[in-house]
Amino acid sequence: MSFHEVPRFPRGFRCASTNCGIKPEGNDLSLFASESPAAAAAVFTRNHVAGAPVLVGRELIRGGRLQAIVVNSRVSNVGTGEDGVARARRMGAAAAAALGIPAELVLMSSTGVIGVPLPVEKIEAALPSLARGLQDDPMVGAEGIMTTDTHPKAVSLSVGPATLTVVGKGSGMIEPNMATMLVYAFTDAALDAAALDRALRHAVHDTLNMLSVDTDTSTSDTCVLLANGLAGPVGEDTFEEALRQALTRMTELLARDGEGATVLLRVTVAGAADGDEARTIAKSLVNSPLIKTMVFGGDPNVGRVLMAVGKCFACRVDPDRIGARICGVGVLEAGERVAFDEAALRALLRTDPVDIEVSLGLGQGRARAWGCDLTHGYIDENAAYYSS
Amino acid sequence: MSFHEVPRFPRGFRCASTNCGIKPEGNDLSLFASESPAAAAAVFTRNHVAGAPVLVGRELIRGGRLQAIVVNSRVSNVGTGEDGVARARRMGAAAAAALGIPAELVLMSSTGVIGVPLPVEKIEAALPSLARGLQDDPMVGAEGIMTTDTHPKAVSLSVGPATLTVVGKGSGMIEPNMATMLVYAFTDAALDAAALDRALRHAVHDTLNMLSVDTDTSTSDTCVLLANGLAGPVGEDTFEEALRQALTRMTELLARDGEGATVLLRVTVAGAADGDEARTIAKSLVNSPLIKTMVFGGDPNVGRVLMAVGKCFACRVDPDRIGARICGVGVLEAGERVAFDEAALRALLRTDPVDIEVSLGLGQGRARAWGCDLTHGYIDENAAYYSS
Repeated sequence: MSFHEVPRFPRGFRCASTNCGIKPEGNDLSLFASESPAAAAAVFTRNHVAGAPVLVGRELIRGGRLQAIVVNSRVSNVGTGEDGVARARRMGAAAAAALGIPAELVLMSSTGVIGVPLPVEKIEAALPSLARGLQDDPMVGAEGIMTTDTHPKAVSLSVGPATLTVVGKGSGMIEPNMATMLVYAFTDAALDAAALDRALRHAVHDTLNMLSVDTDTSTSDTCVLLANGLAGPVGEDTFEEALRQALTRMTELLARDGEGATVLLRVTVAGAADGDEARTIAKSLVNSPLIKTMVFGGDPNVGRVLMAVGKCFACRVDPDRIGARICGVGVLEAGERVAFDEAALRALLRTDPVDIEVSLGLGQGRARAWGCDLTHGYIDENAAYYSS
Repeated sequence: MSFHEVPRFPRGFRCASTNCGIKPEGNDLSLFASESPAAAAAVFTRNHVAGAPVLVGRELIRGGRLQAIVVNSRVSNVGTGEDGVARARRMGAAAAAALGIPAELVLMSSTGVIGVPLPVEKIEAALPSLARGLQDDPMVGAEGIMTTDTHPKAVSLSVGPATLTVVGKGSGMIEPNMATMLVYAFTDAALDAAALDRALRHAVHDTLNMLSVDTDTSTSDTCVLLANGLAGPVGEDTFEEALRQALTRMTELLARDGEGATVLLRVTVAGAADGDEARTIAKSLVNSPLIKTMVFGGDPNVGRVLMAVGKCFACRVDPDRIGARICGVGVLEAGERVAFDEAALRALLRTDPVDIEVSLGLGQGRARAWGCDLTHGYIDENAAYYSS
């Protein structure tokens, strides 16, 4: 398993993107399609207020088969009631007609402003030519789903005889920056829907679900996996490991391109009482505004690590056993600050990625979380612009 | 019950502050004292990593009696092990000796950098003259406990024959801005320690515990209440109501002066399934970076309210019943955006305070949370400065 230098699609998958007129400029509509029906699995946002495409998507994925995904940016089709659901279905039906396949094989996603009607007529008008223009570069499809992302994101790797390709977007969580995490994975490996579902849930648990840019959970988060089987069978464990690697890589791309981010922040917690507590504590650090501004400022402020561990009230913590390393430099032992070369560590803190490793000395629980620094850019993107 | 225009102390309480040499400039040591022993109650941080003064304070408060409080800023005496506990005790003993009272009647607090030894000799040297200089203005004591606070904070009101005075500091949660929430309440009402403890826990539950500047829980948070009884008895309910009012006022002062804040943000949730869920949802909104930057930007971004309610996975939410008002203007009804005058609301969003009211239509649960906007000032204060 090794990543391709230039991302490419598995056999039978193609995509296209265009500007259909929802955004004033830049592509705002993408179509991903397999030449034959694929086994499929998906996970969606846990936000109580889920977008219309998520509501329809949860229904569609029950069949365990998909052949295409149609995605627009700029308008999220969230908070739009029954009419929003009808427009989501029209969007899927238009893509299905353009591709000449059944509507129940097309999943739709929307990302952007909440509470605004989806301009579905523009999408319907653009789909026939979009379907005729399908081509082989996954980066083209990645472009049409961008919101405040600064670059399109796709990765691919070989897994046995097959290829696994992941296309995604991230940045912040919601409007006005019209951002949401959308991740689409395509493979020509042959696995059934149940195996895909297991692999997807396992891999997402340790990768995308451990990503946080700003603690704000989008109403549209979606991750879908399609396997068209054209490359023949791949062992489930082998495939899950490839998926885990690809989603880890995508998680790092998304974290590093978080709104306003200047560096990728990785927090590893070891020695927690159990795995769930390790996850909670890793998330506490990666989400702490004082840790995030410390990384932006490049100052090794050790007390903030103690604070962010200690504020996990529901976890077991022995203050006298906490150890920590920042960028490989030991800064805490047995709950107390140890001497270290501050100037050297300041320099390390300005290089990407920044790793914070915490040891709790209690058990075998281990987890990693991904995030980014908190900067003036985040404030600017989210305070200075509104669109609806 | 009405607030005094200029805060003043209850009978028998006095204070003083000075620069004892821990900070290069500005007062860094305060002493508050009653002329006679007082009944006392206190609540402390729930952070697993609690400062030495908190560890000693939990022990001292068991007696239910205190006569004085000594507080230093700049160095928090956290993450300092057994030696830190010994230095905290020395600080209390020095204040007791200077006042000629037993050491077990003096509570100590420290706020500032974590993981640095407390320069207790400087405190010991300053205390005799500090004790001789006790005077009647609570603002003088409020000055010595400031860290990144932009102004000293004290409020007082009459409650029957008695006076209740609350002195506090806030700003951010920890070092390098050396901030922590410390609140001291003094009254000459006569109540026993058990009654004080009940009143304090009830009032703090709905006031200080519903305050968040940045989600980062300090290792030193402390709120103490002293009642010396010099004004005679006051009914427990009457007193609790006065305490609730005073702590609400102090909470608003602390929130409005949060690091980098330009406005006070108040979030009121009604109609939740129960009170705890109302608290969780109110905190979710007041802590959401996207809500906080929206307030800073002055843009009525309605989708963010839906998002921040919806991300409370553990609470009961019916997306179709969510309603919301921002600064008194209706923006959401039955889960959908309603038409409103955006220009007028933008103008309202630039006035202090900003109120967001959410209704869930499920039950009788109600809560209010206090916070502030997220601004460039917060990033500057927490990224650009490090001291240890």
